[in-house]
Amino acid sequence: MERISSKTVYEGRIVDIRIEEFRYDDGETAEREIAVHPGAVGIVAHDGETLYLVRQPREAVGEPALLEVPAGKLDVEGETPLECAQRELGEEIGMKAASWSELKRFYTTPGFAQEEVTLYLATGLEEIPGHEPDPDERLELVRWPLADLDAAIEECADSKTLIGLLLLRQSLG
Amino acid sequence: MERISSKTVYEGRIVDIRIEEFRYDDGETAEREIAVHPGAVGIVAHDGETLYLVRQPREAVGEPALLEVPAGKLDVEGETPLECAQRELGEEIGMKAASWSELKRFYTTPGFAQEEVTLYLATGLEEIPGHEPDPDERLELVRWPLADLDAAIEECADSKTLIGLLLLRQSLG
Repeated sequence: MERISSKTVYEGRIVDIRIEEFRYDDGETAEREIAVHPGAVGIVAHDGETLYLVRQPREAVGEPALLEVPAGKLDVEGETPLECAQRELGEEIGMKAASWSELKRFYTTPGFAQEEVTLYLATGLEEIPGHEPDPDERLELVRWPLADLDAAIEECADSKTLIGLLLLRQSLG
Repeated sequence: MERISSKTVYEGRIVDIRIEEFRYDDGETAEREIAVHPGAVGIVAHDGETLYLVRQPREAVGEPALLEVPAGKLDVEGETPLECAQRELGEEIGMKAASWSELKRFYTTPGFAQEEVTLYLATGLEEIPGHEPDPDERLELVRWPLADLDAAIEECADSKTLIGLLLLRQSLG
């Protein structure tokens, strides 16, 4: 499969939209509408007793506050996904982690969007002294007991958070 | 939180883009760029021995064939998510199921898109005689041994499929 043409038809704040034409190995061609997205990271952060989640308004889906892992877009030039995750953990919940490992990479909705999410497990947590949350983010920090992980999975309606918590559930046995 | 304005800035084949303004309970306002999407369904179908998956080109993410559960958009007027799932199971893998249950509802990427996915578990499978796959869909049916579920989770890079397979993994113990 090769891309034979690409035309940007919308330039937005989070996504651009491109109409692209592809040729398959058998010679047939097809046009696709693609939402171009820089990708994102999500962080499953816990200290063995508490899971650090956030609630954040999600206007796109009409939900006042979805339960999610700390996360962010790869919107800083030159930053790696791990560096982005380390920055977001600090900005969103005011913590740093001694240990980072990659849990999974996946596409949120590969039928129309490029967005790839890299999920990390962050442990060895330590509070950053003097951290002030960004009031523009409208983030509420949620300290969720790790013993109630199944209830978080039940409530959660965000794909990256569900995948992160289900993988954590599996690793905890 | 209430929506106080909405303007469509792009009308596409899969998504429209709207710029919407919201007012929060504290009186502050914010603009958001939202990809309007009809929603989708995914089907975790197995017969106790075999899991029925598909491989399909995903041009948006540059992957020639992603391993996925059968799935489809809610693009038929008046069709419920369950009816859509039953139709897609027939169209994509030529099967019907005696037993359907809802596994989970979630948003694929609530930071910018409306898309909600309803995942179903379909069991009591039976082949539809004379089924011919749609050549335009470029779908390859994959009969995956249920005993190798962990390997499917390892390979999978599609959010709805990962969530469905991880929930199945948890229910099988």
